[in-house]
Amino acid sequence: MNFKVHVTDVEAGLNVVVLDDDDAKALDASVGDRVKIRLEKREAVALVDLARKGKPGEITLFADTAEKIGAKEGDVIDVEAAKRPLSLDFVRKKLDGGVLTEPEVKAIITDLMREELSAAELAAFIAGVYTRGMNTEEVAALTNAIYETGDRLEFKNGPVVSEHSVGGVAADRVSMLIVPIMASLGIKIPKTCTRAISSASGTADTLEVICPVSLSMDQIRQVVAKTGGCLVWGGAVNMAVADDKLIRIRHPLRLDPEELLLSSILAKKKAEGAHTVLLDIPCGKGAKIENVERARELARKFQTMGSHLGLQVDCIISDGAEPVMNFIGPALEAREVLRALEGLSGGLLVEKACLMSGVLLHMVRGISKEEGYRIARHQISSGKALAKFKEIIAAQGGNPKICSEDIKPGKYSAVVKASAEGRVRHIDNKAISRVCRAAGAPADKGAGMVLKVAVGQQISEGTELYEVFSSSKEKLDFALQQAKQFEVVEVEKIILDII
Amino acid sequence: MNFKVHVTDVEAGLNVVVLDDDDAKALDASVGDRVKIRLEKREAVALVDLARKGKPGEITLFADTAEKIGAKEGDVIDVEAAKRPLSLDFVRKKLDGGVLTEPEVKAIITDLMREELSAAELAAFIAGVYTRGMNTEEVAALTNAIYETGDRLEFKNGPVVSEHSVGGVAADRVSMLIVPIMASLGIKIPKTCTRAISSASGTADTLEVICPVSLSMDQIRQVVAKTGGCLVWGGAVNMAVADDKLIRIRHPLRLDPEELLLSSILAKKKAEGAHTVLLDIPCGKGAKIENVERARELARKFQTMGSHLGLQVDCIISDGAEPVMNFIGPALEAREVLRALEGLSGGLLVEKACLMSGVLLHMVRGISKEEGYRIARHQISSGKALAKFKEIIAAQGGNPKICSEDIKPGKYSAVVKASAEGRVRHIDNKAISRVCRAAGAPADKGAGMVLKVAVGQQISEGTELYEVFSSSKEKLDFALQQAKQFEVVEVEKIILDII
Repeated sequence: MNFKVHVTDVEAGLNVVVLDDDDAKALDASVGDRVKIRLEKREAVALVDLARKGKPGEITLFADTAEKIGAKEGDVIDVEAAKRPLSLDFVRKKLDGGVLTEPEVKAIITDLMREELSAAELAAFIAGVYTRGMNTEEVAALTNAIYETGDRLEFKNGPVVSEHSVGGVAADRVSMLIVPIMASLGIKIPKTCTRAISSASGTADTLEVICPVSLSMDQIRQVVAKTGGCLVWGGAVNMAVADDKLIRIRHPLRLDPEELLLSSILAKKKAEGAHTVLLDIPCGKGAKIENVERARELARKFQTMGSHLGLQVDCIISDGAEPVMNFIGPALEAREVLRALEGLSGGLLVEKACLMSGVLLHMVRGISKEEGYRIARHQISSGKALAKFKEIIAAQGGNPKICSEDIKPGKYSAVVKASAEGRVRHIDNKAISRVCRAAGAPADKGAGMVLKVAVGQQISEGTELYEVFSSSKEKLDFALQQAKQFEVVEVEKIILDII
Repeated sequence: MNFKVHVTDVEAGLNVVVLDDDDAKALDASVGDRVKIRLEKREAVALVDLARKGKPGEITLFADTAEKIGAKEGDVIDVEAAKRPLSLDFVRKKLDGGVLTEPEVKAIITDLMREELSAAELAAFIAGVYTRGMNTEEVAALTNAIYETGDRLEFKNGPVVSEHSVGGVAADRVSMLIVPIMASLGIKIPKTCTRAISSASGTADTLEVICPVSLSMDQIRQVVAKTGGCLVWGGAVNMAVADDKLIRIRHPLRLDPEELLLSSILAKKKAEGAHTVLLDIPCGKGAKIENVERARELARKFQTMGSHLGLQVDCIISDGAEPVMNFIGPALEAREVLRALEGLSGGLLVEKACLMSGVLLHMVRGISKEEGYRIARHQISSGKALAKFKEIIAAQGGNPKICSEDIKPGKYSAVVKASAEGRVRHIDNKAISRVCRAAGAPADKGAGMVLKVAVGQQISEGTELYEVFSSSKEKLDFALQQAKQFEVVEVEKIILDII
């Protein structure tokens, strides 16, 4: 059937067309069914939506769909009923508790990439994986299918390593130390990192204070060829694209089936061209994983999956109950990382980065972890890691002369003080995120906070707990309001209430 | 934060706003998060979508959302981050295998009605119910919550009955006989019926050949007050609205959890004001339920649920393997139903309608089913059912002088003949739907088919199997093509192939 095109100026993100009710009936298509739209030789499959007050004979295309087939306002296009993708039968199979074969998993990911599956259909898939689980073969098939949906790095000579944290811990910027440490030792480490989703800053947000992080695949290859390492935002390149599409659905649902976490991380590591991977599973109160046994189980799954995929995977379970640095937010973190590399500050960040580098060195060189740790420490204290970091900054298009003193937090700040005495029991990652984001992080690079107390410390009424920074007076005020609602520093109380 | 409004001319069906990426970050909102939009005193909660190329400071509203808060192009509205609905925690609880309390179920349905849940979130809920199931209390809570979302009929005096088929059988138009039979006996039967979703015709599509079926609640009340019965399209009134919204998601997913089927049907029966309900569960090859044990189990669940909801529910399990009439499609069915009421034709339709009426009479009058069956038969043979049917037609705004001869199928037709001899083994409901829909049914009232053979009949090469009708030559040809692909009449073969 022929339809006259009306193009609307918003994008749908996937192919959707809006039809008049009777026209849809004539096409034998209901809401959510599929039609094939064709203009000359360009065609696409689109999901049908129905207009409350549709014009007969008219089809409304969203801007992105119109672009796809090159249709303009007033064009006449051919529309016919299209088949339901076979992959929906496999979604159903998973919901029924079936085990998907490799081609079935691949069909789902292929249709996802073709934008032929609706958000509801993808949500059903994710819910199926969440409730029914996947066995090792299924996760391996999913990881490979996701891996194949994007660009990949490949390196011919020598070991290629990577590391990744399951996340959830504030100021965990160890990658910014591990990459220069490993690269300075001649071990390739092409690391992609992420931006914050709900936290104050991701590694990409923090590093962006220092140098560009959005590089093309070719630029990344050049940086790694020149320096042995890189630290780039994964979102700027098309690596493991299907994963980003799945995350777009998983995030609002807050459904993180372990199988999707495994495949998401390992597909990205594989796409980085790594053979040796160290994963960090932070565990503790307020972290993504609160129970050590669960963390151990996840670690074992990562290792099994790794061997299925030809990757050497080791895991560490780290204490994820508190932030890795006392400085949180893009600029504050960037300054502190530079200070660590400059030898001006130590603490948990350097300790954790060197321990992880030690494990990586043990994995690729066969030396003991302790020996590896000492080597990593030496790369920091000798200034070799800083020199390599500056090399990478320069290669990524930043200014290698930058030093920690150049970086300033937002000009507005306020100190939050204790309202009663007691002992600090816990410092909460989620509350930190809330307050920092209210202050404007990560979009406002200067927004964030500096913690002034540690767990176990005895405090009195009026003790300074933390200082909040922002580039905007209004946002600072908003952050201070949020601070009243979300307890960043939890103080032990003997008597909780008197009635 | 203030944003300048751009209104796009399509409707989203739920509240969605499109923002520039940086603006969304400043609001601390990701894709699928929620914002509250406000213009003067009108406000709404909307889901955030991100523009690929957004204009900073601009917010795009879909037409329906703009209407909701009275916003026009260029208006400035206030936008702030909004909380995630609590009901999403209950969706998660169901996915985790938990048992939902009554307030939790209600919260989900309330948020669904407020259009605060996205298609993906609703799909996750449906997938949760599909994989984890619901106990009797949960289904009762769901049924009541759905029932309360719409308008309801209530009748003070005498018994009010209804009946409903789980569906899946072609030409199953027994309601068009049961309603006049019961109403002619002074028993109220305010029946809502549906249009075809994937079949050739629904009762509403067929009856529409004879009289209007889209009535308001007030009109329905008047028709029932005057005649004791009605036969109206449920989609034209706001009864159990939440169910329609759930079906919009369930249909493309093809997920029909039994719990949603139970609550969907019983909420509608309750909204009709019925106290006594007879359900028909067709069972057999090609029907929705193929296994008699499964049908019995479903029947028991309907009864248990009924008593929880204060409804007297009985079920029949009928043979659903073949069509109820040889005439399929809106006009052909309407003509045959009228012929049955006029005493010109009998067969399975009259038999099934009278058996079901007998059970209903047994339920409300305490007489035996056999006695009830004889009474129903008499209402047909005496012409009392026809007289009542015409009364209802007139009350609904149709012409009561209509008779079967007035109704004609589409002017184009073609006969499909047997290609080999054998015995008819099966006549397939799904293949019938495919061919009739290809011919244009149900939008083309004249489209459909007449079956010319019965199961068990011995046929030769060239025996006429069925005749296809359409109002369009092209669609008839398309139907004949489909007829080659989908076997309507399956013939027994001794030798399947010779190699």
